[in-house]
Amino acid sequence: MSVYTPVSEVELTGWLRNYSVGRLTACEPIKAGIENTNYFITTTQGRYVLTLFERLPADELPFYLHLMAHLARHGIPCPAPIADLSDQYLGSLKGKPAALVTRLPGRSLEQPGAQHCEELGALLGRMHLAGRSYSAYLENPRGPKWWRFAAREVMGFLEKPHQALLESELAYQGEHRFPDLPRGPVHADLFRDNALWEDSRISGVVDFYFAGVDCLLYDIAVCANDWCLKSNHGVEPGRMQALLAAYHSVRPVTALEREAWPVMLRAAALRFWLSRLYDFHLPRPGMLVHAHDPEHFRHVLESRIAAPVPWMA
Amino acid sequence: MSVYTPVSEVELTGWLRNYSVGRLTACEPIKAGIENTNYFITTTQGRYVLTLFERLPADELPFYLHLMAHLARHGIPCPAPIADLSDQYLGSLKGKPAALVTRLPGRSLEQPGAQHCEELGALLGRMHLAGRSYSAYLENPRGPKWWRFAAREVMGFLEKPHQALLESELAYQGEHRFPDLPRGPVHADLFRDNALWEDSRISGVVDFYFAGVDCLLYDIAVCANDWCLKSNHGVEPGRMQALLAAYHSVRPVTALEREAWPVMLRAAALRFWLSRLYDFHLPRPGMLVHAHDPEHFRHVLESRIAAPVPWMA
Repeated sequence: MSVYTPVSEVELTGWLRNYSVGRLTACEPIKAGIENTNYFITTTQGRYVLTLFERLPADELPFYLHLMAHLARHGIPCPAPIADLSDQYLGSLKGKPAALVTRLPGRSLEQPGAQHCEELGALLGRMHLAGRSYSAYLENPRGPKWWRFAAREVMGFLEKPHQALLESELAYQGEHRFPDLPRGPVHADLFRDNALWEDSRISGVVDFYFAGVDCLLYDIAVCANDWCLKSNHGVEPGRMQALLAAYHSVRPVTALEREAWPVMLRAAALRFWLSRLYDFHLPRPGMLVHAHDPEHFRHVLESRIAAPVPWMA
Repeated sequence: MSVYTPVSEVELTGWLRNYSVGRLTACEPIKAGIENTNYFITTTQGRYVLTLFERLPADELPFYLHLMAHLARHGIPCPAPIADLSDQYLGSLKGKPAALVTRLPGRSLEQPGAQHCEELGALLGRMHLAGRSYSAYLENPRGPKWWRFAAREVMGFLEKPHQALLESELAYQGEHRFPDLPRGPVHADLFRDNALWEDSRISGVVDFYFAGVDCLLYDIAVCANDWCLKSNHGVEPGRMQALLAAYHSVRPVTALEREAWPVMLRAAALRFWLSRLYDFHLPRPGMLVHAHDPEHFRHVLESRIAAPVPWMA
C-alpha cells in the first residue's frame, strides 16, 4: 500500500476549512499507486481525491495540476484540481505539498476489446487537441535523457545479452530521433489502470504525474503497447487498428508520424523496461510496493524489434 | 418557449469542431428561460448546455462565464464553461455570442422543506466564500440604480396605492443603505427553479446571468423570499431558521448583517416586484414567454413591511 503519510480525520477536517467543499464525512486511504499518498475524501459537497506529494519535485507540481485543470475545463474527463479559498491548487498538509482533485466515477478495465480501444483513441486525440493551448512546459521526465541515466544505473545488474539489447536499442533510438513530430503535453502513462470506464465510456483518465511535453505520437505508443497487447507480446491488429483509426479521426496524423510509428513503439517499450529495471534493482528506501516485473517490457521491446508494427489507419 | 435563434444539427456539428468534447449525438431546445436561447447538447464525451446570448451586453459575458468557471473549480456545483481549442469560453454561433457549459444532473424542487433550506444555506455560504477570491467586477445589474430607472418606467401603469407603496419603499431603501456589509459576487436569482437536486443534495446551481457584485446578505434575502415562503406571503420560521443557521455555520454573519436583514428582505422583494412589473408592462419585442405575475412580489413586499422578519440564527 502507498500511504507514506497518515492523516487523521481531525487533521483533514481542519485542512478542508481552507476549501469551499463542505464538511468531511468520510476518508479512506487508497492502496494503489507508488509515488504519492492518496486518500478518497467524501464531503457534504462531493467526492474527491487528496494527494500528498511524497517525491515529485515541488516546482514541477504546478505543471501537473494546471494541466489537469486545463484539460478538465476543455471537457476532458480528468481529475479537476479544487482551488482553495486563496485560489490556489497546491496546498500543504503534514509538511507535504498537497492537492485536492475531483474523484471520477467508473472502474478500470483489464481486458479491453476493439471498441474500448476505439473509445480510448478518440479520447486521446481530444486530449491532445485540448492540450495544445496549454502553455506551461515541462520536459517529459522519462525521456531520452533519463533513459541514458537509468541505463547506466541498471546496466551492472543485467545479464550480458540484455546489456547488449539495451545498448543497441539506446543507439538505435539515438539514431532515429524525430524532432519535427507534433508535440504537446502528453499523459505518458495511460495504461489500462489509469482509465476509468462507466457504461462503455471513459469516465476518467487519471494519474497525470508522469505527464510532460513530448511527441504526441509517443503517448499513442504507450497506450498501444498496453491496450493492444497479445499474450505473446505482439499486438492484436483489431484493437490496434481501432485505437489508431479513432485517434486519426480526431487528430489526423502526419506522414512523418506514420513513418516514425514503429520506432516510437520501441521507444515506449524501452522507457518502461528501463523504469521497471530501475525500480526493481534500485528500490527507493521506504518504497512499500512490489516493483513491477521488468521482464514484461523487455519482451515487448524484443517483439517490436523482431516484428515492426506499421501504422494502421 | 425561448429559442429565439434556431441552430441546425449541421451547424452545431460544425461548431463543435472548435471544442474537444467529441461528436454531437443529440440536441434539444430548452423551453424554460427568457433571456437566452438554450439547447441541451449530448456528445460522445458528455452532456452540455449551449447558450446563445440574445440580450446580455457582450462586454458583461466574461464576468458571468469566468465567475462560473471560478466557482466550479472551487467545487461549487455550477455549470462549468468549456474552453474551446483557442482556450476561450466565449465563442460565436449564428452571429450571436455563445458558450458551452456542463449540464448538471438533478431536478428542481417545488416544495422545499427545512432540510432542503439547510442544504441551500450551506451551499450559499460555500459559494460566497469561494466567490471572495474572484477578482472581476460587475455591479449588480438589478441594484438600486436600476430600481429607480424601472420605477420611473412602470409608475404610470400602477394604481395610486401601488404608486405610493413603490415610492415609499424606494425612499425607505434610500434611507437604509448599508455600505459596510460584506460584499462579493452574488447569484442574485437563486429561486427554487435555479437549484437542481439529486438524492436530497444540491447537484447544481444554474443561471448566473443576473449575477453581480453586491452585499452577500442580499443573496440570502433573495433565497429566503422564495424558499421560505408561506402561502400568505409571510415566512415559514422552520425553513427560514434552517436556511440562516446553515449559512451562518459556513460563513458567520456579522452583527451589522443581522441588523440589516429585515431591510434586505424588503429590498429583495422590491427588486423582483419591479422587474416583474417592467416585463409585464413593457415586454420586449419578440419576448415569447408569459411574464410572471408582478402581484406576487408586491404581496411579499407588503408582508415584509407589515411583519418585519428578524435574523434567526
